[in-house]
Amino acid sequence: MKPIVVVDPPRADRADVAELGRLGVATVFEAAGRTGLLGNLLRPAWAGAAAAGTAVTVLCQPGDNLMVHVAIEQVGVGDLLVITTTSPSCDGYVGELITTALAARGAAGLVTTTGIRDVAAITKAGFPVWSQWVSAQSTVRATAGSVNVPIVIANTVVWPGDAVVADDDGVVAVPRLRTAEVVQSGRQREAKEEQSRAAFASGELSIDRYDLRPQLDRLGVRYVRADSGEADTDLGEN
Amino acid sequence: MKPIVVVDPPRADRADVAELGRLGVATVFEAAGRTGLLGNLLRPAWAGAAAAGTAVTVLCQPGDNLMVHVAIEQVGVGDLLVITTTSPSCDGYVGELITTALAARGAAGLVTTTGIRDVAAITKAGFPVWSQWVSAQSTVRATAGSVNVPIVIANTVVWPGDAVVADDDGVVAVPRLRTAEVVQSGRQREAKEEQSRAAFASGELSIDRYDLRPQLDRLGVRYVRADSGEADTDLGEN
Amino acid sequence: MKPIVVVDPPRADRADVAELGRLGVATVFEAAGRTGLLGNLLRPAWAGAAAAGTAVTVLCQPGDNLMVHVAIEQVGVGDLLVITTTSPSCDGYVGELITTALAARGAAGLVTTTGIRDVAAITKAGFPVWSQWVSAQSTVRATAGSVNVPIVIANTVVWPGDAVVADDDGVVAVPRLRTAEVVQSGRQREAKEEQSRAAFASGELSIDRYDLRPQLDRLGVRYVRADSGEADTDLGEN
Amino acid sequence: MKPIVVVDPPRADRADVAELGRLGVATVFEAAGRTGLLGNLLRPAWAGAAAAGTAVTVLCQPGDNLMVHVAIEQVGVGDLLVITTTSPSCDGYVGELITTALAARGAAGLVTTTGIRDVAAITKAGFPVWSQWVSAQSTVRATAGSVNVPIVIANTVVWPGDAVVADDDGVVAVPRLRTAEVVQSGRQREAKEEQSRAAFASGELSIDRYDLRPQLDRLGVRYVRADSGEADTDLGEN
Amino acid sequence: MKPIVVVDPPRADRADVAELGRLGVATVFEAAGRTGLLGNLLRPAWAGAAAAGTAVTVLCQPGDNLMVHVAIEQVGVGDLLVITTTSPSCDGYVGELITTALAARGAAGLVTTTGIRDVAAITKAGFPVWSQWVSAQSTVRATAGSVNVPIVIANTVVWPGDAVVADDDGVVAVPRLRTAEVVQSGRQREAKEEQSRAAFASGELSIDRYDLRPQLDRLGVRYVRADSGEADTDLGEN
Amino acid sequence: MKPIVVVDPPRADRADVAELGRLGVATVFEAAGRTGLLGNLLRPAWAGAAAAGTAVTVLCQPGDNLMVHVAIEQVGVGDLLVITTTSPSCDGYVGELITTALAARGAAGLVTTTGIRDVAAITKAGFPVWSQWVSAQSTVRATAGSVNVPIVIANTVVWPGDAVVADDDGVVAVPRLRTAEVVQSGRQREAKEEQSRAAFASGELSIDRYDLRPQLDRLGVRYVRADSGEADTDLGEN
Repeated sequence: MKPIVVVDPPRADRADVAELGRLGVATVFEAAGRTGLLGNLLRPAWAGAAAAGTAVTVLCQPGDNLMVHVAIEQVGVGDLLVITTTSPSCDGYVGELITTALAARGAAGLVTTTGIRDVAAITKAGFPVWSQWVSAQSTVRATAGSVNVPIVIANTVVWPGDAVVADDDGVVAVPRLRTAEVVQSGRQREAKEEQSRAAFASGELSIDRYDLRPQLDRLGVRYVRADSGEADTDLGEN
Repeated sequence: MKPIVVVDPPRADRADVAELGRLGVATVFEAAGRTGLLGNLLRPAWAGAAAAGTAVTVLCQPGDNLMVHVAIEQVGVGDLLVITTTSPSCDGYVGELITTALAARGAAGLVTTTGIRDVAAITKAGFPVWSQWVSAQSTVRATAGSVNVPIVIANTVVWPGDAVVADDDGVVAVPRLRTAEVVQSGRQREAKEEQSRAAFASGELSIDRYDLRPQLDRLGVRYVRADSGEADTDLGEN
Repeated sequence: MKPIVVVDPPRADRADVAELGRLGVATVFEAAGRTGLLGNLLRPAWAGAAAAGTAVTVLCQPGDNLMVHVAIEQVGVGDLLVITTTSPSCDGYVGELITTALAARGAAGLVTTTGIRDVAAITKAGFPVWSQWVSAQSTVRATAGSVNVPIVIANTVVWPGDAVVADDDGVVAVPRLRTAEVVQSGRQREAKEEQSRAAFASGELSIDRYDLRPQLDRLGVRYVRADSGEADTDLGEN
Repeated sequence: MKPIVVVDPPRADRADVAELGRLGVATVFEAAGRTGLLGNLLRPAWAGAAAAGTAVTVLCQPGDNLMVHVAIEQVGVGDLLVITTTSPSCDGYVGELITTALAARGAAGLVTTTGIRDVAAITKAGFPVWSQWVSAQSTVRATAGSVNVPIVIANTVVWPGDAVVADDDGVVAVPRLRTAEVVQSGRQREAKEEQSRAAFASGELSIDRYDLRPQLDRLGVRYVRADSGEADTDLGEN
Repeated sequence: MKPIVVVDPPRADRADVAELGRLGVATVFEAAGRTGLLGNLLRPAWAGAAAAGTAVTVLCQPGDNLMVHVAIEQVGVGDLLVITTTSPSCDGYVGELITTALAARGAAGLVTTTGIRDVAAITKAGFPVWSQWVSAQSTVRATAGSVNVPIVIANTVVWPGDAVVADDDGVVAVPRLRTAEVVQSGRQREAKEEQSRAAFASGELSIDRYDLRPQLDRLGVRYVRADSGEADTDLGEN
Repeated sequence: MKPIVVVDPPRADRADVAELGRLGVATVFEAAGRTGLLGNLLRPAWAGAAAAGTAVTVLCQPGDNLMVHVAIEQVGVGDLLVITTTSPSCDGYVGELITTALAARGAAGLVTTTGIRDVAAITKAGFPVWSQWVSAQSTVRATAGSVNVPIVIANTVVWPGDAVVADDDGVVAVPRLRTAEVVQSGRQREAKEEQSRAAFASGELSIDRYDLRPQLDRLGVRYVRADSGEADTDLGEN
């Protein structure tokens, strides 16, 4: 793979991105047809962090953050830097200096499969960051990689310009050309979930609301009393 | 294993459960003879969460939360839902809708070996949840499982109706018929620990308080001065 | 290895230790020539914890904290207890009683590769603790180990008396005889980073500040427009 | 938990155990109603190892194999030693000496959640062993545990006297009082699988043999041609 | 994502696939520009297994192998079944019955991110299989998935019809339309490596053959004698 | 840490090294006072591999094997290359070319905490290699590291010139100046173990041979009959 920096890729619609951010990771994931989740290992640097932006992607060598510096120049207002490596790396690719630079450029946040450092300073600054590791181990700047090429995190492809939403539930990416559709679907889902929440809060049961009892019958689930002798346990030796 | 839902299993004594909750996970684990801990991977959704309740148990297939919906109907005031799967699953089995339903029924909390989602909403609502993962990845509702059968988490059997205590130290289960004994033992331990804490706060040494010096002698532990030449290090090449 | 307790090993200079603590883990790691980091698995018991002290080291058997009790007597004001085991152990070696004893002796904090328990009480007391696990599983007091011998954590040797600094970024150890040099180097680095931070905050790019463009040329990194047909993606099938 | 050694627990029927061994782990697991598997981390010390016996169970402290020595005396012809620990331990609990002693007593094999050592000698001797780890790290003999109490491995309870079957697929336990039933069910399954194998070998499709096509319809699975434009891919940016 | 089965996708050129198989995983990975490796967790069921084929891809729900049965019908001579799941699953998706069916259809092999079972039978039959787990835990057949859609394993996209090569080094996928190019590049690499091997076997040094000494100079690597006092060690306390 | 290559460090005595190799990893580990084991994650590339040599150590950056090429020149007859990285790396640092070069120089083997590739060729050549990973992912040659400095693997320091022994049980390092002592202790241990093995083979019990019964009494271990009602199980609900 030849190292390249793709300049000015098209971005997802800003209004869509903002609305996806309002809907949040769990709703967006559902609305996108249960796709786009970047796994379950990316955690916010500080509880309550939330962000939505358009992806500027970075592919680095393990232990080497040279291309992160290159990527900063490609970041504009509302972009969100998404970093991964050709082999797994837990090193601290990003700290206070890089998040300061990103904030100065109006970046919406940062997501990396590597480690980060300067967690206290990043928390104090309130810059939203998600990473798999926290590590003070710094990196070198010796080898080439690429910026704004499609990258893959947790088996999900992230293209430059895709919408990326992140909160306490993790990180989800929505393909650039699908954001309008996902916004629409997400709003419908939001409305429906609000109705369900109200119903459940007032005591309705989900097996009734979702009409699950016939399915339980088909699956052969039986209700038995605890003292009926049918409440068999299979733990042996009894 | 035939799928069953056991209705109205006997519950541990409410007053005992409340007292076990007051004693906390670490003391209860000790008082129960160092048994009942549900491993070290279950973490609270929000720092400071604490709960105690009687177990309503759920056994699901991986990636399928159908039986959680079935279990909600079996939950009464003071119950605590305990979920596990037949094979490991990191998916988000539970989110805001289900915790809302549980709260409406007076549930004491929720413990699951799977993932959860809607962490921000759950935190805001203050509903106490422990899980091994956070994941927006949702589940299907396609396959049968069981409710209120004995389940095993981290090699500890949890029976329906058992007392379950959870806090920042993790989760511990106490067999239903042993709660009175564990409460008594826990109170004794609590009193003794309070005395030890006061002693240690005022400078007493635990090797004296626990009379460990004779044991050190028996084990051949020697005290040497740093400059004595006996402080050998075994790191090689010196 | 014969079990020994080394009494009164020399400690790193107190003023240096304090200054290293002020500089923080990430800066100290860099200033020490990118050495001394105790891995990326040690996490603070409570967010925002920070500490610096001189190491009193403990080497225990797995599941056995006898030597922690022995070590407490060796702890003086400004010392920081550093615990590891001969084989990995996730058990709860330390809880409220031991941290109370350490606080009473003026200890600066505690670092352990094992688990801890009583997290709520430790958090409330504000005693700074780093561990790899949280676990209510307690230990026995049956087997010998050593105190104030060199121990190895995450492939870094920690000698008794070394400076140990810990914060939200993890834990770093500085050899006792190198603290003055690392303080000096750390201050220089701090000044330089402050300048960089100011520059980045006002919009300067790190690829310019660090003069990385010639290196990108040497490495063959090319800038291409998104619509140029050169923005090749290698995802197959297109 | 008080340390005890239970003497002469009843054993599963020898003929049943032998037949379960002939059927093999995968068939026995199915025949037992998809229960009893001791997880997926226990691997044979040498490829091709296979064994079936009646469990003599051992519960040890981490890093301490005292109770393994105690257990050997309780092992008779056809027994299979099953070892676990109160906390996870990867140490080498068992090596050539202990397997020699077991072989001399007519043991059928050994299963342990810990490590083993002397793999070359064990392989040469052909004694069947399953473990989670290989480690030369030896253990101490300092703390009490129990023999022939129920233990839990990978969330499955193993009672003394249970049938245990192990081969290249892992290890499965069958409750002592269920062996006849599982043998019968296993033979039926074996016959049925033999017919299926013959059918598949001659080209029959499992979707036909298991009549899965109607289910695919119900689930909405559609067949589309690759060149139809319906073979949508959701990888973004196309 | 709507569940679909894509019928008769175009396959990579058979002769290219065979040649890629001859070149082997490591050479193909390099020849493809260091892309296409399906991670480092897929291991052969038996040492020495090697295979090359065109991918028939399967995307299943966790714990559910329904779509594997559907996929078998889509497998032709020279195809290689590649299975993954929407969430991680270690269950035994494939055993002797399915591999028998695949062999009957002329399949080249099977790769799955899940578990497999019947390892002894598969080994005896010599059918080449790679998996991440071995587990007798079987699956249900309840939920829809897709066949011959692009899937992602270890962050590499595998398209139906891609060339897949597997041996003791793991598994690599080559996009269908790139096989000719990779074959050519692989043969050149093979020739070059054969020359290097001969050179190294006769004592030439790689730092000379690859002309690395000038780079070492640039990087500031210094050669020092062991007894020179410059062989500094940074282990502290010396 | 300045990158250096230490030339001609003193080596451990050749005859001692050979004898340590004959004794094997488990015996050497014990004879060295239960020290020196390089963890439990290093596995041989092929079953039955065994080697003993004097360490030539290599410290690389993650994803970069430049210094391995540098190290080859420092390898003489009977040396064993020991590679680790400043941050964890699972990449394939070593393949057929490097092992060919090492064999040509008379190297005794290779140990690396990284991945290896060309496993089939290495196996065929019979060159003994231990690694933590198998991966075709190759590395770059861009960044400096050091050769023949002390390195740390699994918390054990390996100095250049140390004796390193590896077999199916893993890898152990013996400090250069301790080899004679460890040989002597190892031979004594070997003789003693041979006597124990003979005793156990003829039916003697280890609790008698090691006189463990008094200790069991002291620890309060009680023998109870299975039908005595004292064989309490603590699994709840019975």
